[in-house]
Amino acid sequence: MCELLGMSANVPTDICFSFSGLLERGGNTGPHKDGWGITFYEGKGCRTFKDSEPSCTSEIAKLVKAYPIKSCSVISHIRQGNRGRVCLENTHPFTRELWGREITYAHNGQLSNYQDLKPEFYKPVGNTDSELAFCWILDEIRKKYPKKPSDMKPVFRFAAKLAKQLQAKGVFNMLLSDGIYVLAVCSNNLHWITRKAPFGEARLIDADLIVDFKKETTPDDIVTVIATRPLTDNESWHKMEAGEFVLFKLGVPV
Amino acid sequence: MCELLGMSANVPTDICFSFSGLLERGGNTGPHKDGWGITFYEGKGCRTFKDSEPSCTSEIAKLVKAYPIKSCSVISHIRQGNRGRVCLENTHPFTRELWGREITYAHNGQLSNYQDLKPEFYKPVGNTDSELAFCWILDEIRKKYPKKPSDMKPVFRFAAKLAKQLQAKGVFNMLLSDGIYVLAVCSNNLHWITRKAPFGEARLIDADLIVDFKKETTPDDIVTVIATRPLTDNESWHKMEAGEFVLFKLGVPV
Repeated sequence: MCELLGMSANVPTDICFSFSGLLERGGNTGPHKDGWGITFYEGKGCRTFKDSEPSCTSEIAKLVKAYPIKSCSVISHIRQGNRGRVCLENTHPFTRELWGREITYAHNGQLSNYQDLKPEFYKPVGNTDSELAFCWILDEIRKKYPKKPSDMKPVFRFAAKLAKQLQAKGVFNMLLSDGIYVLAVCSNNLHWITRKAPFGEARLIDADLIVDFKKETTPDDIVTVIATRPLTDNESWHKMEAGEFVLFKLGVPV
Repeated sequence: MCELLGMSANVPTDICFSFSGLLERGGNTGPHKDGWGITFYEGKGCRTFKDSEPSCTSEIAKLVKAYPIKSCSVISHIRQGNRGRVCLENTHPFTRELWGREITYAHNGQLSNYQDLKPEFYKPVGNTDSELAFCWILDEIRKKYPKKPSDMKPVFRFAAKLAKQLQAKGVFNMLLSDGIYVLAVCSNNLHWITRKAPFGEARLIDADLIVDFKKETTPDDIVTVIATRPLTDNESWHKMEAGEFVLFKLGVPV
């Protein structure tokens, strides 16, 4: 399968610590060696780094790990391919423009009988079940909301409903963001943690790395990290229930 | 204004040499310090590196310069902003999906009275004249070709016609690619050069760098580089005429 990583924060925050843990699972402590990607929002814009190389050896992953890009909304993914071969166009996250906003998505799981998803507006570039499902979700949103609504919360709740329909076809854990909101939908495996004052130390499971967030933050910072499996072993992560979704904005559930 | 750089090749080729020259113009030998970007196609997929930092000091640009990503179709751009502030969403190249293909675009120039361009299908994320023009071009292509035609040449010729309409609104030099074709449209300033056997040495204008392409290539390689201004001073570049366009595939005009 794959692993997901997301972040929602109230101040631009780098994700180097969490990303360092995730990268190890891409061919070292985990089997997810079929590519990786990460999308950072900065204002209305976003940028994606991706590679079909294993994340634990990728030169570009090394840069992202070492260079602290600060963002309030991040979506990342490491892939262990099942549907669709290992290549750049099958590498998550996927981004499409809707109403002049960049919408970014990553999926963990596997669908069956997904051939009846026939999006008209958005078409997949690669041949994964994941990208097809993303195009279908965007198509359905676009049909229901031809113009951008002023309040985006109902749009994300609708997206969570669509995800539920997809869960009838298989395992469908999803992260979805417009740069302001980050939606986490759990099919069978998704965890999250909110870090805020008083900050403490965190120790990665997958790499020999401890960070003292007291030294890295201000007392007003609120940062939520979402991951398939907890990334640290000395903190308490919320385990999401099957079928549950949580919508985050500026680091907190809304 | 800005500067454009494009490449079309018959074998995956890195663009490190040309990109090294272009980067210097982003705040060092040239004034184009308002961000930069580069898109590499690999198969049907593509990846973009971009930054609103000046290219001559950007950490990410350093990576791209040092890490030889090989591609048959590349579009790059360094920005000196006129319309739209300096930020990530205003940074070229821009990419949108059409018929399940990634279409990438960069523009050099400046338009007036462009507010009457009202694309319905694709909407700009940022507020540049350039991205609005791109959305309009894609909208017009989509209206004329609701499905992907088997031959893409007429589509690019149609895009060149649309570019000509935009030239009535100001300066509009453009690079446009679907990963297989690279279209170069000249409004007032665009040059290209095709390198093939027998290969020789090339000397950058903007950096103290000479490359001997004999050592870097095989006899069958054909590589065309397109740039706003010639990047080397010991080779003969084709200067394009105002209003002219050239469509490249696998390194050669078609």
